[in-house]
Amino acid sequence: MADRAFNFAPGPGILPLPVLEEARRDLVSLPGIGASALEVGHRSAWFTSVIEEADSNLRQLLAIPGGYHVLFCQGGASMQFSMVAMNLLRGTGAAADYVITGSWGSKAIAEARKEGAVRVAWTGADEGFIRVPGPDELLGSIGSTAAYIHVTSNETIQGVEFPTTPIVPDNASLVADVSSDFLSRPIDIGRYGLLYAGAQKNAGPAGVTVVIVRDDQLDRIPDGLPATLDYRTYIEHGSRYNTPPVFAIYIVLLVTRWLRDDVGGIQAMHARNRDKAKLLYDILDESPAFFRGHAQAAEEGLVELKGHRSVGGIRASIYNAMPREGVEALAAFMREFRERAGDAETEGRPTRS
Amino acid sequence: MADRAFNFAPGPGILPLPVLEEARRDLVSLPGIGASALEVGHRSAWFTSVIEEADSNLRQLLAIPGGYHVLFCQGGASMQFSMVAMNLLRGTGAAADYVITGSWGSKAIAEARKEGAVRVAWTGADEGFIRVPGPDELLGSIGSTAAYIHVTSNETIQGVEFPTTPIVPDNASLVADVSSDFLSRPIDIGRYGLLYAGAQKNAGPAGVTVVIVRDDQLDRIPDGLPATLDYRTYIEHGSRYNTPPVFAIYIVLLVTRWLRDDVGGIQAMHARNRDKAKLLYDILDESPAFFRGHAQAAEEGLVELKGHRSVGGIRASIYNAMPREGVEALAAFMREFRERAGDAETEGRPTRS
Repeated sequence: MADRAFNFAPGPGILPLPVLEEARRDLVSLPGIGASALEVGHRSAWFTSVIEEADSNLRQLLAIPGGYHVLFCQGGASMQFSMVAMNLLRGTGAAADYVITGSWGSKAIAEARKEGAVRVAWTGADEGFIRVPGPDELLGSIGSTAAYIHVTSNETIQGVEFPTTPIVPDNASLVADVSSDFLSRPIDIGRYGLLYAGAQKNAGPAGVTVVIVRDDQLDRIPDGLPATLDYRTYIEHGSRYNTPPVFAIYIVLLVTRWLRDDVGGIQAMHARNRDKAKLLYDILDESPAFFRGHAQAAEEGLVELKGHRSVGGIRASIYNAMPREGVEALAAFMREFRERAGDAETEGRPTRS
Repeated sequence: MADRAFNFAPGPGILPLPVLEEARRDLVSLPGIGASALEVGHRSAWFTSVIEEADSNLRQLLAIPGGYHVLFCQGGASMQFSMVAMNLLRGTGAAADYVITGSWGSKAIAEARKEGAVRVAWTGADEGFIRVPGPDELLGSIGSTAAYIHVTSNETIQGVEFPTTPIVPDNASLVADVSSDFLSRPIDIGRYGLLYAGAQKNAGPAGVTVVIVRDDQLDRIPDGLPATLDYRTYIEHGSRYNTPPVFAIYIVLLVTRWLRDDVGGIQAMHARNRDKAKLLYDILDESPAFFRGHAQAAEEGLVELKGHRSVGGIRASIYNAMPREGVEALAAFMREFRERAGDAETEGRPTRS
């Protein structure tokens, strides 16, 4: 533990220490198996139990209603930008409505445009992506015949998050990129037709993507899609049509066990996350528009605070696995930085880079 | 070491023990980084050096000529069945020629058919996939205007391997699925337009696919492909357009270091593999058509010998990382099994299941 820094990276992000320790313990040979999780066959009894328990834990943690499938795909959210449109838009004759609240939504619609008709239902671009649409604004913007409505639950680059599930018309199909807040707070799955999340924020390492899709969405999938890009392939073969990313799914299993057994579920996780966020927002409230620097933090064991290359500035990702002590250390650093800078300015020697 | 079995799985397959031990040592925190390879950002200096050295080691090990790109994709060979045809066939107006020597080639052509015109140039189906075409047979079968010629260098399910690089006309583009013999023997890369390999046989864990593509192949890629399925995206972004499978690529790096430093290169690896194969083929030569059973081996620490569910029987995959002692143990087991069965038959009590 002593040599671990507090890692505020936006993704791949920090994993729970007990998960890493269990993975390390068994890395060369799983008990009773005689091989590493990096080697075991994807059709073995061991991996069958891994993928089945990961599925079951996700269903329990998120209270996923009946009629939903849990899929383990590859390629990240960026691949889902295409798969969603290939499966749910191609050949429908309708347009898909995209609600753009930041960079990821912009990328999602660009890929969907290659597969069919799309429409920008609402965008925050003109305002510089500083907010989500209000409920009435959103409802008023959606086309009555949209193939689906796509939202990004949390735009990590701009820091714009839907506070609750967006309300769309009853007959509409709501599709969401939930990569960055997946498993960090409760989510009303029953309101969505499809959700997807790159695992590398809260659910596991980079290399596996969780997709949750409602049964009725499958009816419109056109025939002739590549097998590895057709959601039905994953459903029919239990995400094992071909070799899945075995080790990454194994880590997702360990993370879901940690959430269930150590943390006590998603409500408890959400409470922890709110508490951590408050530590930081309190400082921002004390001195708005102050923090622009990104130097010096690494010396104090705080790493990966650099802002996205498209935006700059400082960005602290306080995912599930970030302990409160890490956020406390960052808060203390921010206060000290502010005070030192204030002293320097008082003395007429501004030192911020 | 004591609790590791000899793992003859066809893929995911066995990894070198020193690779697993190094990965275990650093699993919770990489020296000087303060985070696990399961957590580190894909744009960090650490991962930049990982992916650059993995690229460089592969170039050195395989003597890859100039003008070739090394890409790290996701989705396995099955995703490449589609990507190859999307990138190199769509919109060319030509047909792609497929040489079918087993199950994987059959799957490859089925996916390519969704993207454009294909032609079965040669198939071993009628003979039950027992051989590859001879050089003249192959040359005579290839269309003069084929978009490319696709081969599977080694069909793992049927055990049919091209002994050397297939000879195709000078102006033709040769594309190969080399998943199961990649890095196990020298390969004349300069004769190929494109090669691809799911890493989970000899190069690393499941979850990353290595693609090697010659520059001149890129000219024909049509615009409008999904970003994550366009080879140019991987080239332009150094395989980091979006989050790659960081940990899997890190293991590929460790495997290439092991091949370079511990084994001494691909020629040395090939010599080791030939020696291991001879141990088994000698037994088969002694008693042809005898070995049909698959019971009892697990008790002696030999696991994953079960044949493919489509074929049955026994299948021993003696990938790079399988030590000679593992093959010796299997050979001894096979001899003992044969003798016990022989005794039983002599006594009139055949016991084979």
